[in-house]
Amino acid sequence: MGKVYLIGAGPGDPELLTVKAARLLEQATIVLHDSLVSREVLQIIPRSAEIIDVGKRCGQKLLTQDEINALLVSYAASREAVIRLKGGDPVVFGRAGEEIEALRRAGVAFEIVPGITAALGAAAVAGISLTDRRAASQIVITTYSRGSDSALADPFAVTPQLNWAAISSSTTLVLYMPGADYAEVSRRLRDAGQPDDLTCVIVSNATNAQQQICWTNVAGLASAAKLAAPALLIVGRVATQQVEEIAATRWRPEPSERQSKHPTIS
Amino acid sequence: MGKVYLIGAGPGDPELLTVKAARLLEQATIVLHDSLVSREVLQIIPRSAEIIDVGKRCGQKLLTQDEINALLVSYAASREAVIRLKGGDPVVFGRAGEEIEALRRAGVAFEIVPGITAALGAAAVAGISLTDRRAASQIVITTYSRGSDSALADPFAVTPQLNWAAISSSTTLVLYMPGADYAEVSRRLRDAGQPDDLTCVIVSNATNAQQQICWTNVAGLASAAKLAAPALLIVGRVATQQVEEIAATRWRPEPSERQSKHPTIS
Repeated sequence: MGKVYLIGAGPGDPELLTVKAARLLEQATIVLHDSLVSREVLQIIPRSAEIIDVGKRCGQKLLTQDEINALLVSYAASREAVIRLKGGDPVVFGRAGEEIEALRRAGVAFEIVPGITAALGAAAVAGISLTDRRAASQIVITTYSRGSDSALADPFAVTPQLNWAAISSSTTLVLYMPGADYAEVSRRLRDAGQPDDLTCVIVSNATNAQQQICWTNVAGLASAAKLAAPALLIVGRVATQQVEEIAATRWRPEPSERQSKHPTIS
Repeated sequence: MGKVYLIGAGPGDPELLTVKAARLLEQATIVLHDSLVSREVLQIIPRSAEIIDVGKRCGQKLLTQDEINALLVSYAASREAVIRLKGGDPVVFGRAGEEIEALRRAGVAFEIVPGITAALGAAAVAGISLTDRRAASQIVITTYSRGSDSALADPFAVTPQLNWAAISSSTTLVLYMPGADYAEVSRRLRDAGQPDDLTCVIVSNATNAQQQICWTNVAGLASAAKLAAPALLIVGRVATQQVEEIAATRWRPEPSERQSKHPTIS
């Protein structure tokens, strides 16, 4: 029996793979990956390896979760190392729990190799300290889903139980997969008592060549231009503080940072 | 003028550095690091490089935050690349915000290179999916501090504003630096309505040779043995679910996972 490695592919830039993930991918003979794994990361896998896309595209599942679980167990019977590659980190909105349970039930050894989750990739490129002690004491990481059937086609969809009212002024909220309805997210933030001028940063394709960053606020979010998925939203005083600081210092991001917009509220 | 790289050193295992962090460290000529950076990570820095420990030990500050900020700006005037190396990820309880502000004010270019934050390292070694959709829809990452002066000597100390009552049953709570007073943490979890049998996992030195994992619950936490710092606490149904699953499948962790205790409630 072989071993299954649940590996985080990070946010997209192949240099943001861990050394361990890169080593395992370079030696891989079989890789099952999600659709969120970047093309640049997939390119470091040897050509001789078998690469299976088990992800979902345009709401169409390629394989069910049960089918993926069964494939992992099945390949582990004949391969020394089976790589299960997930975007970001495997244990943050990556459905690792169900795969881990299936592997345990089948008696298959596994190991989790963490990755840079999207929140950290996005914060890094936006230059935001998520817990700046002058403005935040906690981070809430969650997803936004309206709970519709179509949302369930989204690999990140979970029960929409965010307690929006519990977002204190010292919380940095990171919303994975804000969807296309920014107006609804804006409305829910306002309903939860968040001020209109609280900064919201939308980061699309963080650390990828297609990266885009849009700086707005709770009020402006309602009419902000939609950025391509995968995207996430950072909301909080840590972001507001940064906009003010940048305005005060006339600092401008370097072109090499791939930022599409200057961090001023549009 | 050179550039300052704010780099995450990850949880300890040097293989959990990102490829980019490892590359920058291997080329470094000057590194300013915190005390939480593991010895194994520091060993990949060339011997010819200048290595400055700016961390805190036993509550004694080696340098104030202002002194660290000034050093970064000063070194950037004479070096092409200045490495500021922080345990975990720079933007999660790493005081990056104050350093970023100082660099902007001084007109010094900087780049954030994300790292594996302790929550992800600990979840990986404990085998816990932090957002298993059957048990959680959000992660709250915070610190526990009693707000005393002595707590401020702790590099992770922030204003203690966790809204304990807001921890819903679908939240996974990750408490960085739970301190030595587990009984107080247990009491606050109970006061916030968390059930006595909700699983708590204490992970000390995740991914390091000294790694220890202790599985207990809200009631048992009060009398749990103290694990060495740096440690963190994972609390939530995702952990309870795993204990039940492991009991059902008779799965045992491999010795190679360095786990000091089996994941059964002690």
